[in-house]
Amino acid sequence: MPRYKLTIEYDGTPFVGWQRQSEGLSIQRVLEEAVAKFCGERATVHGAGRTDAGVHALGQAAHLDLAKPADPFRIMAALNFHLKPHPVAILDCREAAPDFHARFSAIERRYLYRIANRRAPLTLDRNRAWRITVPLDAGAMHAAAQSLVGKHDFSSFRAADCQSDSPVKTLDALDVTRLGEEIEIAARARSFLHHQVRNMVGTLKLVGEGKWRARDVEKALAARDRAAAGATAPAEGLYLVAVKYPEGAG
Amino acid sequence: MPRYKLTIEYDGTPFVGWQRQSEGLSIQRVLEEAVAKFCGERATVHGAGRTDAGVHALGQAAHLDLAKPADPFRIMAALNFHLKPHPVAILDCREAAPDFHARFSAIERRYLYRIANRRAPLTLDRNRAWRITVPLDAGAMHAAAQSLVGKHDFSSFRAADCQSDSPVKTLDALDVTRLGEEIEIAARARSFLHHQVRNMVGTLKLVGEGKWRARDVEKALAARDRAAAGATAPAEGLYLVAVKYPEGAG
Repeated sequence: MPRYKLTIEYDGTPFVGWQRQSEGLSIQRVLEEAVAKFCGERATVHGAGRTDAGVHALGQAAHLDLAKPADPFRIMAALNFHLKPHPVAILDCREAAPDFHARFSAIERRYLYRIANRRAPLTLDRNRAWRITVPLDAGAMHAAAQSLVGKHDFSSFRAADCQSDSPVKTLDALDVTRLGEEIEIAARARSFLHHQVRNMVGTLKLVGEGKWRARDVEKALAARDRAAAGATAPAEGLYLVAVKYPEGAG
Repeated sequence: MPRYKLTIEYDGTPFVGWQRQSEGLSIQRVLEEAVAKFCGERATVHGAGRTDAGVHALGQAAHLDLAKPADPFRIMAALNFHLKPHPVAILDCREAAPDFHARFSAIERRYLYRIANRRAPLTLDRNRAWRITVPLDAGAMHAAAQSLVGKHDFSSFRAADCQSDSPVKTLDALDVTRLGEEIEIAARARSFLHHQVRNMVGTLKLVGEGKWRARDVEKALAARDRAAAGATAPAEGLYLVAVKYPEGAG
């Protein structure tokens, strides 16, 4: 039974999230329905990460098995045809090794969080960024973010329903950059806890506003208590940018 | 009667265009309705350019007169409040000279045209770029574009309903740049004919595909005949970026 790896882009706005649920439209569901329309098979599409409702992807990864082999390029074209009119697109499809697993084989995930730091309501970026009207100091946010980089117990940034075995994760990078009125926060790690990026962003916002200093972020991390850190940043600013696998694995 | 200059951003997707029409929602109409809700006055909002249905703006300019003077910052905040839920936002509001006119005082207009040069359907960029699946040679497009720069009779790139007195315009710049899978075409001139940018883009696409050479673009320009140039590129890729006025005029 051949296995295929998909690279997927989506606008998360109209979805209840990646994962199939009893109610509502999930990205997984529209993908599995497109597979069924294409070849009649009821395959499960396994994603690298379960993005929440409203979270976008520029490069989600997934795998699926098909009973009947097919040309990867044909699979991609057929899925894109059957995914219409949903804002979900297959960017790439290739055959993968039988032991490749989109979630468990991943060695790195990259996320981007976009803040629109401006007074005016959003128009073209509506549902695509978090608007913060108070001027933010991106330099201070970047400096404070560096205390979160490395191997830590991230309990203070972990959602109550997080299913990870351990709150200890290694954050490889957390970079805050200003581009005009936009602030981009780029996060990179092997894996993240549930809501970890959004909770780190909500905390760095306090630094950007001048309410917190870098040492307050250090103290929040050390507290290992969700109540010690900032609020969860809204879903609409978050993008799963890319998922990386060992050379030759996907 | 004080005059105010507005800088306006909008997502053109849900609108019939800038200009008020008997049927359908125009940007001008939702702006004028917001003014009426704010202060009860029935003011006309004069735009610098009449963008077509589906065309976006990052920095449209407009002016309006109010019988009762008001603080520009308060006008901006009130209009943004009353513009909801339409994807139209006031980025700036300032008092202007009594003889300032958003359309006639303008000395430069800048447009951006975005092409998504990829196979996969668009998700986050749906309605925000023109998807072209054939690989385009942006370098060839840029080289060919240079024959359009300067003072020319642009009849070959002019819509039948164009109301300009003359087809002669001076195009100050037409730059084609590739950024990954995106191709950006930036156009700058004092003023443009109706559909001029979209018709130039539709023509440069032929060059990008390899169907035309640079000299075919020169011949199309010289023909002064709309039928000699390429098809009109779709509205959704076009953005009115900025309108410039003489120092101190707006």
